[in-house]
Amino acid sequence: MKLWEKGHPLDKKIEAFTVGDDYLLDQKLVPYDCLASIAHVRMLGQIGILQKNEVEKLVRELNRIVELDRKSQFKILKEDEDCHTAIENHLIGELGKLGEKVHTARSRNDQVLTALRLYEKDRLTACRQQLEKLIGVFRRFVKQYGQIQLPGYTHMRKAMVSSIGLWGQGFIDSMKDNVYLIDCAYKLIDQCPLGTGAGYGVPIKIDRPFVARLLKFKRVQKNPIYAQHSRGKFESTLLHSLSQIMIDLNKIATDLVLFSMDEFGYFELPKSFCTGSSIMPQKQNPDVLELIRAKYHLLVAYEMQIKNITGNLISGYHRDFQLTKEPVMKGFEITLESLAMMSLIISKIKVNRENCKKGMTPELFATERVYELVKQGMSFREAYRKIAEEY
Amino acid sequence: MKLWEKGHPLDKKIEAFTVGDDYLLDQKLVPYDCLASIAHVRMLGQIGILQKNEVEKLVRELNRIVELDRKSQFKILKEDEDCHTAIENHLIGELGKLGEKVHTARSRNDQVLTALRLYEKDRLTACRQQLEKLIGVFRRFVKQYGQIQLPGYTHMRKAMVSSIGLWGQGFIDSMKDNVYLIDCAYKLIDQCPLGTGAGYGVPIKIDRPFVARLLKFKRVQKNPIYAQHSRGKFESTLLHSLSQIMIDLNKIATDLVLFSMDEFGYFELPKSFCTGSSIMPQKQNPDVLELIRAKYHLLVAYEMQIKNITGNLISGYHRDFQLTKEPVMKGFEITLESLAMMSLIISKIKVNRENCKKGMTPELFATERVYELVKQGMSFREAYRKIAEEY
Amino acid sequence: MKLWEKGHPLDKKIEAFTVGDDYLLDQKLVPYDCLASIAHVRMLGQIGILQKNEVEKLVRELNRIVELDRKSQFKILKEDEDCHTAIENHLIGELGKLGEKVHTARSRNDQVLTALRLYEKDRLTACRQQLEKLIGVFRRFVKQYGQIQLPGYTHMRKAMVSSIGLWGQGFIDSMKDNVYLIDCAYKLIDQCPLGTGAGYGVPIKIDRPFVARLLKFKRVQKNPIYAQHSRGKFESTLLHSLSQIMIDLNKIATDLVLFSMDEFGYFELPKSFCTGSSIMPQKQNPDVLELIRAKYHLLVAYEMQIKNITGNLISGYHRDFQLTKEPVMKGFEITLESLAMMSLIISKIKVNRENCKKGMTPELFATERVYELVKQGMSFREAYRKIAEEY
Amino acid sequence: MKLWEKGHPLDKKIEAFTVGDDYLLDQKLVPYDCLASIAHVRMLGQIGILQKNEVEKLVRELNRIVELDRKSQFKILKEDEDCHTAIENHLIGELGKLGEKVHTARSRNDQVLTALRLYEKDRLTACRQQLEKLIGVFRRFVKQYGQIQLPGYTHMRKAMVSSIGLWGQGFIDSMKDNVYLIDCAYKLIDQCPLGTGAGYGVPIKIDRPFVARLLKFKRVQKNPIYAQHSRGKFESTLLHSLSQIMIDLNKIATDLVLFSMDEFGYFELPKSFCTGSSIMPQKQNPDVLELIRAKYHLLVAYEMQIKNITGNLISGYHRDFQLTKEPVMKGFEITLESLAMMSLIISKIKVNRENCKKGMTPELFATERVYELVKQGMSFREAYRKIAEEY
Repeated sequence: MKLWEKGHPLDKKIEAFTVGDDYLLDQKLVPYDCLASIAHVRMLGQIGILQKNEVEKLVRELNRIVELDRKSQFKILKEDEDCHTAIENHLIGELGKLGEKVHTARSRNDQVLTALRLYEKDRLTACRQQLEKLIGVFRRFVKQYGQIQLPGYTHMRKAMVSSIGLWGQGFIDSMKDNVYLIDCAYKLIDQCPLGTGAGYGVPIKIDRPFVARLLKFKRVQKNPIYAQHSRGKFESTLLHSLSQIMIDLNKIATDLVLFSMDEFGYFELPKSFCTGSSIMPQKQNPDVLELIRAKYHLLVAYEMQIKNITGNLISGYHRDFQLTKEPVMKGFEITLESLAMMSLIISKIKVNRENCKKGMTPELFATERVYELVKQGMSFREAYRKIAEEY
Repeated sequence: MKLWEKGHPLDKKIEAFTVGDDYLLDQKLVPYDCLASIAHVRMLGQIGILQKNEVEKLVRELNRIVELDRKSQFKILKEDEDCHTAIENHLIGELGKLGEKVHTARSRNDQVLTALRLYEKDRLTACRQQLEKLIGVFRRFVKQYGQIQLPGYTHMRKAMVSSIGLWGQGFIDSMKDNVYLIDCAYKLIDQCPLGTGAGYGVPIKIDRPFVARLLKFKRVQKNPIYAQHSRGKFESTLLHSLSQIMIDLNKIATDLVLFSMDEFGYFELPKSFCTGSSIMPQKQNPDVLELIRAKYHLLVAYEMQIKNITGNLISGYHRDFQLTKEPVMKGFEITLESLAMMSLIISKIKVNRENCKKGMTPELFATERVYELVKQGMSFREAYRKIAEEY
Repeated sequence: MKLWEKGHPLDKKIEAFTVGDDYLLDQKLVPYDCLASIAHVRMLGQIGILQKNEVEKLVRELNRIVELDRKSQFKILKEDEDCHTAIENHLIGELGKLGEKVHTARSRNDQVLTALRLYEKDRLTACRQQLEKLIGVFRRFVKQYGQIQLPGYTHMRKAMVSSIGLWGQGFIDSMKDNVYLIDCAYKLIDQCPLGTGAGYGVPIKIDRPFVARLLKFKRVQKNPIYAQHSRGKFESTLLHSLSQIMIDLNKIATDLVLFSMDEFGYFELPKSFCTGSSIMPQKQNPDVLELIRAKYHLLVAYEMQIKNITGNLISGYHRDFQLTKEPVMKGFEITLESLAMMSLIISKIKVNRENCKKGMTPELFATERVYELVKQGMSFREAYRKIAEEY
Repeated sequence: MKLWEKGHPLDKKIEAFTVGDDYLLDQKLVPYDCLASIAHVRMLGQIGILQKNEVEKLVRELNRIVELDRKSQFKILKEDEDCHTAIENHLIGELGKLGEKVHTARSRNDQVLTALRLYEKDRLTACRQQLEKLIGVFRRFVKQYGQIQLPGYTHMRKAMVSSIGLWGQGFIDSMKDNVYLIDCAYKLIDQCPLGTGAGYGVPIKIDRPFVARLLKFKRVQKNPIYAQHSRGKFESTLLHSLSQIMIDLNKIATDLVLFSMDEFGYFELPKSFCTGSSIMPQKQNPDVLELIRAKYHLLVAYEMQIKNITGNLISGYHRDFQLTKEPVMKGFEITLESLAMMSLIISKIKVNRENCKKGMTPELFATERVYELVKQGMSFREAYRKIAEEY
């Protein structure tokens, strides 16, 4: 039974369509929704809606759901529609009338927002950790190979002297800025929406700072209309920050695919990281790098998807918002697994000193020769033209 | 065992990442890949690579896989990586050495292309049918309610007199043009890629027109490099045609959500099509319409995803292309179910004559009054200014 | 003075914002709007709204505007807002009262649609011609260099033997399919919207087939609501077809940038096509190819822009649609100039026989060796594994 | 003459294509490039490349260019290609040999980055100010009308009681978070790239912190490869922050368009803010709101454009990056003018007390009635079902 059922059964086809895969996605939210419900229940105790022993019973049962879920024994059914309903139904099943009180002073709308936000904070923290890990891997890589010189390219043409150190450090610096962006997103979303109801508050006095504190939110998201409006806004901001990680991985992957070609041979991917062809027996393909490269575009599409779904809509909740859940979840998964893959790759990839050296052809030093003339007092532009004559 | 395995086991984490959910998506392709393999095997018989009885054995076993799949008894395992491997492994398991011959004169690359294209032709045909069905439903709707007048809006302001007939016919005409776009996409992709191998043909003389004929393709896609390049091109074209269906459904849904508000009341959605709120007991929400509206944006994102994944890459296959599979499959699913939902809705929605009439306020007739003056000989612009004075 | 002015002057800042750059973009539409107005005026003569000599006067003056515009002497002012107003104002200025009649039986809405569609048909035809030209250039290129073998790549790894002929023919085939897509878009939009007014027709009997015939439209776009709805739909379809040209150019450019690197040297770009660096005197950069590559992404963004602007809006005209004009115009410009550039490049680029030959390393023949074993009777998979042992 | 010219004239058509409109866009960068050049010249003095009087001459001339530009007397010609060339050519024209020294120890690549970043910091500051202004306007609006109750909607259906205060405060809170996002973007890009050359440094010892200090950058962007890579990354981050402003304006506009319809009448737009129709004399159209709404989608497209242009490219500069300039500039323009428009609108729009009151129908109080039962001790779910029976 759904939370909102009141005697008119929903057409079965309509139900199948509106529920979609939501009940599957929601499996990820179960522990966060329980956590939020525990804080909510404690607050209801605080303001006298629930009695102390009622609070304890509910908290105990909610903790039991977390436990069941950890063991994959708490399943959301299609008929349940979502995790919120499944949890309330479970509470009513176990605790009877008491379960019917748990939804006091909240709506599914602020419940979803809260569970999602707790989940998002968790995943952002995981991303930050994976980023730090990759930075560490890159540091070791630079330590090992940093001195090796290789050609630096612009316009995909040999330009000036570069080095593995310069190349690796570039990504370290970029990833540090990604950490900053992750932190920005985290701080933005670190506000507690529980208590905003369906976007117009609840007709009862509640203690929102108490709930926020229990859930470790930095602050209360006061305005209930903004709470709804922030759905999509917050998600697109966090997806943007993930896309910045992914564009870095896209570039690393693109570099590695190119420069591990036999024609360059600067990098060597372990054979155990390469797949083959069903027809060509000699092939060693860098599929893992190609997929990381391609997955950047998924992140961009997810961000855009959310940005477009939420446009041209008036204030207040719309069911359209539901479709922002999947891109966020997938965005996190992809970013986390791509970061892990890249850490594995950078920790195992080899730099081929010999090939790097072979690549260091004379034109890479043309600019240095200009500057030798500059140091002898020639104007830069004149020195440039003088050396240019040779090419 | 994978088709390309040759003694260097793939790192387990890399494997998990590169396979992803592909083996699940591929379940949809099993019958199409078998169909293509049957045609391929018959061709191999034709050119003397297989003997007649070998052909018959392989065809029989491939048909058996189709049968098993129909009963959900043919499962692709993660270790199989994809349906092509699962099928070849099954054939080798059942037929021994003979199974090892089936991959002669093809690559997984042209196999994927062929299976996908057969699947796509099938789904495009299904979309066409659902479109025709919706056109039929709209025709009956117009027949029943067409005479009812209601306000026509521009800039979301009352403009001139409209009617249910005008409104419904507008979508009928638009959907007829969508049928045309579906047909355009169908004709474009109706070319057989089997025999193009991994993008550079196969080093053996084969009979491509024979295969194309068996698979009911209109023509052979001759150039193998183009066959690879068309992956993404064809998919984005068909997703564009689906997006045109979805923008129509988006507009219908947007119209119905607005004009079924109590403030207008022109349309009435059956209660059994509406969901409720977990907090507000009075709510009858048009979730089904909101989701159809929102799903348009998924189609746009899918098309864009494919367009971006395939950019900035040189000729020839890249593993990136793999990521074009899911958006195509999801695009079809969404379009088909949204069309079905809209047919259901239009067949059940009611027009409220009373409210439409109430909406017919005088300003809707201002333009007609201008034209009365025009008919009396006044210049249009003068007549316009004269009537405008009243507002 | 604007067509709709009636005594309440528009706030100056609001005016500047709403007009934007429209009056500049509209300069391109002047001849098409005049053409449409001539047909409209003749039709008004036909149905008795205008007398024969009135028709002749108006037609003469409209032709004069076309002439003035050809000499860049017809300027749309910011106060005019758009070309339609500028033209009506001009007619009133020259012909007095008679000019005030020209807007009878139409709205700016169907006027814009008609002028845009005539413009679009023109530009699509131009694209088709440029495509045919590029196909011709590629044919000559293949004739000259087609026999040269060079490595074929998959996953950016040497795969099998390819040739300049195979490569060039791949793009010829792809561009032929682009011609087909251009034709599909052309046929879709080849319907006359004039007479649909502001989306609800005009309160006077007019002869729409007569107008359509004069303007060489294949058919009348009957339903006025659909006429409005097709704005955006038609534009996104034609932009999609342009994007398919651009993805081909993107791929050609990506191939040429890579394979003209010294590390490959298969292709040689004339020096006069390359730009240099402000700091590195040796550089020969393929900027022209990089820009063609990048401009593909503009086309994708334009299509998406239109698709998103028009979503989540009810039936009928919205001012939002105005913003679909610029992406269409820019989309055409970019595609046309990119096609012209590519024709120039392919006609001048050289294939370096020596370097292509050097690239033909043994692993490219591994598959052929598998097939030699197959021809001796070994099963494909066994032969594959046998040769694979060497790698 | 271009900075990189060395005797091989560039093909004229190629030149026209590669320069494009860049020389026009660059007009905006002239003062920033001069500012950066002044700092650069002072640094060259510091490290002994230029003598004190040379520094002063160059600084004086650069300041003169700023002055000329302020009076629109410094024009970049198409042959100049960009502002950097125009400025160097001007310096050489005025100061001869001395001008030829100004490009020592830098490349156009880091010059562009620096000028753009100074420009971006300026524009972000302007956005922040416009945001603060709009927040102020909203505060006064809330002060004036905040007490007025009106219906709150979810799913575009009457939900619970809302108020102008709640509605306005929602946007104030959202815009405060936008200020935070603007600040995040500002802090990210506040690093000085001058001295990174073409992405691989310059072969001469320079004092980068000195330059950064003079240009008021918070820190030096040390790694030159990251400096190039950050092009696109920084721009997409700032466009994301602008898109968050625009989605707020999109929502405000969507609310105002709907709720100023006669059918609601909660808001009243001044007549001088409305445009009319060329055919319907009664129309008062909210074009300004529709355009603000639509322009959100431009911002999304710009961000995406940059994200896609920069994908799948190896490290180092590519000419593709040039195409990221226009979307950034347009993004700023649109956001700034939309913010200004919205401030104007909110300061002038009226709330219609009467209509708001009329909108307050009984179902809006259903939830409150549930809570009355809850306060009497009934469980929430039971109370909900009891009240639900009435609907």
